[in-house]
Amino acid sequence: MPAMFQQKLTACAMAVEAALDDLLSRAVRPGELRRPERLLAAMRHAALGGGKRLRPFLVVETAALFGVPPNAALRAACAIEMVHCYSLVHDDLPAMDDDDLRRGRPTVHRAFDEATAILAGDCLLTYAFEIAADPATHPDPALRAELVRIVARASGLGGMAGGQALDLEAERRETPLDLDETVEMQAMKTGALIAVSVEAGALMGGADAAQTRALATFGQAIGTAFQIADDLLDHRGDATTLGKRAGKDAARNKATLVARLGVAAAERRRDDLVDDAIAALNSVGAGERTGVLEAAARFVAGRSS
Amino acid sequence: MPAMFQQKLTACAMAVEAALDDLLSRAVRPGELRRPERLLAAMRHAALGGGKRLRPFLVVETAALFGVPPNAALRAACAIEMVHCYSLVHDDLPAMDDDDLRRGRPTVHRAFDEATAILAGDCLLTYAFEIAADPATHPDPALRAELVRIVARASGLGGMAGGQALDLEAERRETPLDLDETVEMQAMKTGALIAVSVEAGALMGGADAAQTRALATFGQAIGTAFQIADDLLDHRGDATTLGKRAGKDAARNKATLVARLGVAAAERRRDDLVDDAIAALNSVGAGERTGVLEAAARFVAGRSS
Repeated sequence: MPAMFQQKLTACAMAVEAALDDLLSRAVRPGELRRPERLLAAMRHAALGGGKRLRPFLVVETAALFGVPPNAALRAACAIEMVHCYSLVHDDLPAMDDDDLRRGRPTVHRAFDEATAILAGDCLLTYAFEIAADPATHPDPALRAELVRIVARASGLGGMAGGQALDLEAERRETPLDLDETVEMQAMKTGALIAVSVEAGALMGGADAAQTRALATFGQAIGTAFQIADDLLDHRGDATTLGKRAGKDAARNKATLVARLGVAAAERRRDDLVDDAIAALNSVGAGERTGVLEAAARFVAGRSS
Repeated sequence: MPAMFQQKLTACAMAVEAALDDLLSRAVRPGELRRPERLLAAMRHAALGGGKRLRPFLVVETAALFGVPPNAALRAACAIEMVHCYSLVHDDLPAMDDDDLRRGRPTVHRAFDEATAILAGDCLLTYAFEIAADPATHPDPALRAELVRIVARASGLGGMAGGQALDLEAERRETPLDLDETVEMQAMKTGALIAVSVEAGALMGGADAAQTRALATFGQAIGTAFQIADDLLDHRGDATTLGKRAGKDAARNKATLVARLGVAAAERRRDDLVDDAIAALNSVGAGERTGVLEAAARFVAGRSS
């Protein structure tokens, strides 16, 4: 991985961690009566201390294509990261994927309890929209309203949560999801939030319609490539890299592209997606500034390469 | 209850039902790949076919103080109702209040399953913010962003969900919540969303700062009065009126003002709150238009009177 890219990714993760830490501090904000201690602790457990912060990085670096300084896009980035963290908390619940470990630590319902985990997820999701809508995120209210709208659209019924529902349903079906169904489910479950991270960056940067379309294509391609890379890692059973239980997809007969296509074809599809993503990126016309996002596309597809 | 008030409440409930039905139709909206059938059915189960639609009524009638026609405030009203419905779905879960019945029908996790109930709640919450932020809700983006912000603030960590967390914690404590703690918990758990319904109406109506403050006072007072009325109903054990299991507060040693103050003092406090609410309302300077909200305050405090 290029040194400059790694440096930027680490710097962004540190800035996101500090910003999330501040947003999730014990300081009661105007309009709040109180921040219940245990609930706040559960939200902090879910949101702090880990992760590559890939989605925030995509927000910040896409905005940077248009000359937006990193700090100016940080709150929008944190809002999307909170949506991601909420989804992990709820997906880990016993009624869903029933996971005990996440990033090598106990999941929220293990470290606290189920009710607190449900509420902590709810509150992270709610707080994400409060942050996105807050004047501190961007001076233009039209941009803030649009940020809320696109993040909500990508996260709900027709996006991330809908994809999780399709994935759970697939486990109960007699016939597994076919290739097209698997692609659609993953585009919703994982792809939508990664794609909207890029779209949010384009929004913060004031991209025009053609640039936004190209960046949406870039985001969707790397979202899918990311999912294939994740499935390949799980297939190889590398629990250390994953920080969670490996091989569980196969054990549960989960729908993955690796299962549908085989390893070699899945790898080819992932590589094609990276090529598509970079072609879309180059059409934005942001010159040399696209280098970081190009590295991000390769990073997403290879994870540790 | 005055006939005009009852007529308006019923008309609003019917308009809200129709609007929610449309928003939760199977038609895929731009930016959505698909609306998973079972998940959508669970969201419809949670949001359609019941309830007085008190919160939407407060949005619509507060906006009407300023001459806003009912339909113009309907989407904002539906967004808040979706937040309310999501909270019921999650509160009913086995890990929380573990309820089998809601409005005389099986709760969502009973009619479907726990995972679907968690996701349906998540999606209702997410959709609420998507609707609030959508240009169709109001032409002014600053107003939409502010709507998102105040609804999120009232619903999350420092509001409704935080209040639910405090309520659950109280059940686990050795000493019950004292009077002040009970008042604070209820102001967060129930009061905040009722108050923000009124504030959202003021926002849609273009209220000035003084009017907004007065209406916030009105909203907070009726929110608390509503909770006392609900506790009194539960204390009397009237399952038919409640449409849910009665007497359960006492069975679980739940913190209620009735338990802290006794029935007579709780009733007095409720009546004082209604007086306070009406005084605040009269200070808005909206003339005879306040009649409906005055009736709403009495209705909220008496429920069936």
